[in-house]
Amino acid sequence: MSARTKYLLDESDMPTRWYNIAADLPEPPPPPLHPGTGEPVGPDDLAPLFPQALIAQEVSSERYLEIPGAVLDVYRLWRPSPLFRARRLEKALDTPARIYYKYEGVSPVGSHKPNTAVPQAYYNAAEGVTRLTTETGAGQWGSALAFAAATYGLSCEVWQVRASYDQKPYRKLMMETYGATVHPSPSELTAAGRAILADHPDSTGSLGIAISEAVEMAAADPQARYALGSVLNHVLTHQTVIGEEALRQFELAEDSPDVLIGCTGGGSNFGGLAFPFLREKLAGRSTAVIKAVEPAACPTLTRGRYAYDFGDTAGLTPLLKMHTLGHRFIPDPIHAGGLRYHGMAPLLSHIYELGLIEAQAIGQRDCFAAGVQFARSEGIIPAPEPTHALAACIDEALRCKESGESKAILTALCGHAHLDLPAYGAYLSGSMVDNELAEDQLSRSLAELPTP
Amino acid sequence: MSARTKYLLDESDMPTRWYNIAADLPEPPPPPLHPGTGEPVGPDDLAPLFPQALIAQEVSSERYLEIPGAVLDVYRLWRPSPLFRARRLEKALDTPARIYYKYEGVSPVGSHKPNTAVPQAYYNAAEGVTRLTTETGAGQWGSALAFAAATYGLSCEVWQVRASYDQKPYRKLMMETYGATVHPSPSELTAAGRAILADHPDSTGSLGIAISEAVEMAAADPQARYALGSVLNHVLTHQTVIGEEALRQFELAEDSPDVLIGCTGGGSNFGGLAFPFLREKLAGRSTAVIKAVEPAACPTLTRGRYAYDFGDTAGLTPLLKMHTLGHRFIPDPIHAGGLRYHGMAPLLSHIYELGLIEAQAIGQRDCFAAGVQFARSEGIIPAPEPTHALAACIDEALRCKESGESKAILTALCGHAHLDLPAYGAYLSGSMVDNELAEDQLSRSLAELPTP
Repeated sequence: MSARTKYLLDESDMPTRWYNIAADLPEPPPPPLHPGTGEPVGPDDLAPLFPQALIAQEVSSERYLEIPGAVLDVYRLWRPSPLFRARRLEKALDTPARIYYKYEGVSPVGSHKPNTAVPQAYYNAAEGVTRLTTETGAGQWGSALAFAAATYGLSCEVWQVRASYDQKPYRKLMMETYGATVHPSPSELTAAGRAILADHPDSTGSLGIAISEAVEMAAADPQARYALGSVLNHVLTHQTVIGEEALRQFELAEDSPDVLIGCTGGGSNFGGLAFPFLREKLAGRSTAVIKAVEPAACPTLTRGRYAYDFGDTAGLTPLLKMHTLGHRFIPDPIHAGGLRYHGMAPLLSHIYELGLIEAQAIGQRDCFAAGVQFARSEGIIPAPEPTHALAACIDEALRCKESGESKAILTALCGHAHLDLPAYGAYLSGSMVDNELAEDQLSRSLAELPTP
Repeated sequence: MSARTKYLLDESDMPTRWYNIAADLPEPPPPPLHPGTGEPVGPDDLAPLFPQALIAQEVSSERYLEIPGAVLDVYRLWRPSPLFRARRLEKALDTPARIYYKYEGVSPVGSHKPNTAVPQAYYNAAEGVTRLTTETGAGQWGSALAFAAATYGLSCEVWQVRASYDQKPYRKLMMETYGATVHPSPSELTAAGRAILADHPDSTGSLGIAISEAVEMAAADPQARYALGSVLNHVLTHQTVIGEEALRQFELAEDSPDVLIGCTGGGSNFGGLAFPFLREKLAGRSTAVIKAVEPAACPTLTRGRYAYDFGDTAGLTPLLKMHTLGHRFIPDPIHAGGLRYHGMAPLLSHIYELGLIEAQAIGQRDCFAAGVQFARSEGIIPAPEPTHALAACIDEALRCKESGESKAILTALCGHAHLDLPAYGAYLSGSMVDNELAEDQLSRSLAELPTP
């Protein structure tokens, strides 16, 4: 087994532009609407929450956006990230498939999230903002923003979903080590949090609730802005450094993916890897099948409605046209906390509607089985989120074994599980269950979708 | 800040030989002795514990040992590791010093330990061993051996120091994810463990005790062998891939270290980085000052005696000539669990006696202060062990600031702290204390040193 295990790029080969897929789509995604007027929101509506530079990126129709030098300097702490050929997993599966994984766990916080946290913190600092607020589910995003805020000297306040705050004390400690302040959500600090607690004193929270709290706090402080770790266009655009690097690494490998598989929660990791490949596909330079995998307990693409909905539970955000389970839907507290969001990125939802990608939902025990197999062959213990993609990836490789096809499969390994090991403990002990989708709750929450 | 942040090597530039510094020392280190006869131990004495290949490496006088291809194949999962220039830390310190760190946290378990765990598992598997036993303190070593054992299909049983077993549940979960079995030590499974528990039912354990247990279990099973994560010659030799890579990376940087600083527990991380540079120094090609930093609560080099002593608490191992606090000395349960061992590698102790390296002891609060400063500038949260080296490194950089000297400082960042975050929590909350060295216990344990 002397053939190459990983494909590295030099710092000097790091992408210097983000790719904005909106410029290449056959039709533009529907705009966000103001919930009061039903009209498309303008920059002024968003100014209390985001710096001007990010608002401009959010609505940009430019194909490429320059990455500022000060952002590249921080990216260099871990980028370019490696592309691995999973030779040991291939051997364990006895498959003729060639399995590749693009690994983002090399970042300081162990996930892909700093790819957007760093530019978000940078643009805020550049416009004189001194305080960032955000929410976090699994804790990956909060950790990333805490790191990025420390890098540019901003203060950072994180509302962490209560279930995660209680179950993942290490995440809170990581954010605090970077200097951030962490609150469990729902909290008594905001009107949105107090309203939830009044009805549900024992609420374990949700991303939607935590977003409401962080948005409310940012809107109330002129020195503060809000930062979101997924869902929005600019976030997905920042993540395209992943896919741009992977394209160059496939050139080094003298190969190209037949199938690309990523996990989807809000869509940022998936979009980050997939969009540059989708550009190649739209231009006729690739025929890769591109597939999103989501948790069976929170299946926004496969079971959600494509409709205008709020991004948060309290209804403080603009209305976004997206695949949604309804903004009041609270998914079961599955271990892949990063995939536990009621909506899906509008850009990705639109692309799914255009028929450019496929989607699949998988239960969490199958995902963890894939995670354990991967760990024991490739060494890296995958975060619970990307085990969804790995499960589909292993299925595909086993189909290749049956058919004899030697497909090249690319998957997004967006992080490691060092801070998620209790989830593996639950799986190994046999106590993990496959949460059923709460059908009753889904019907109710879909019936409560807002009408723009 | 457009200058280079990290120096990467291609897989094809990975070292293919380990460096055995014993071949280059002006006099050989004193041999291990049989505790019964007082005679040097021979291969037959060690055969119940180690495979022949490792015994041969332990006593080898060859300068270079070939790394087997099957080991290189696994090394490729994370090696070569990056050498970073800490430009953001330099800026934060406003120092003219050039600070470099060789980062081993990119391995699947987040530390340098797999560099020796992998070859140890490989040689055992090659000789038909089916079961490995070992001990672990902080959990880094146990995790590494669990990963390596999974790689070669061996079963793996780990005795984890009770204090760590209780405080670091994530470590246990990581080992179990790789398929290992973990016991708290002292345990009722061994005579050594039962003897300790009879006298001290609430014993929080020590590395010395856990070694006794793992050695006892291996010796009793012809299919089993024992694996040690530090201290022994072959372990330090395996780790020299770190320093060999760093030498090549300094060539890329067109620089060379004036000062090299590493932390020392058993000595494997330090030796791994330092020995190749020491070779250059002995050959007159380098003038680098080489410094070992140890915890003030467990100061084997600076306060221990250079004498023959047992490697374990129960006295089951051969006698090793080393810097020791006495094999019955039980250090305070400091957060840098990997540095909490009563002895120091005989090879490193010998090198220290030859005056080839310096040593310094630092209290844990100063170390964590350095760790937090590093995290907030460089992003990576350092494991508690290498914060000792970072504290000395920052001191050196600040001296450069005063003197105006622009020294190149190289430090060994042997792992990240993702599984050690409660230690940072203790530091940030102000509850961390600087454990005093237990002087009374030290006097007693030194008085009990065996006489060969």
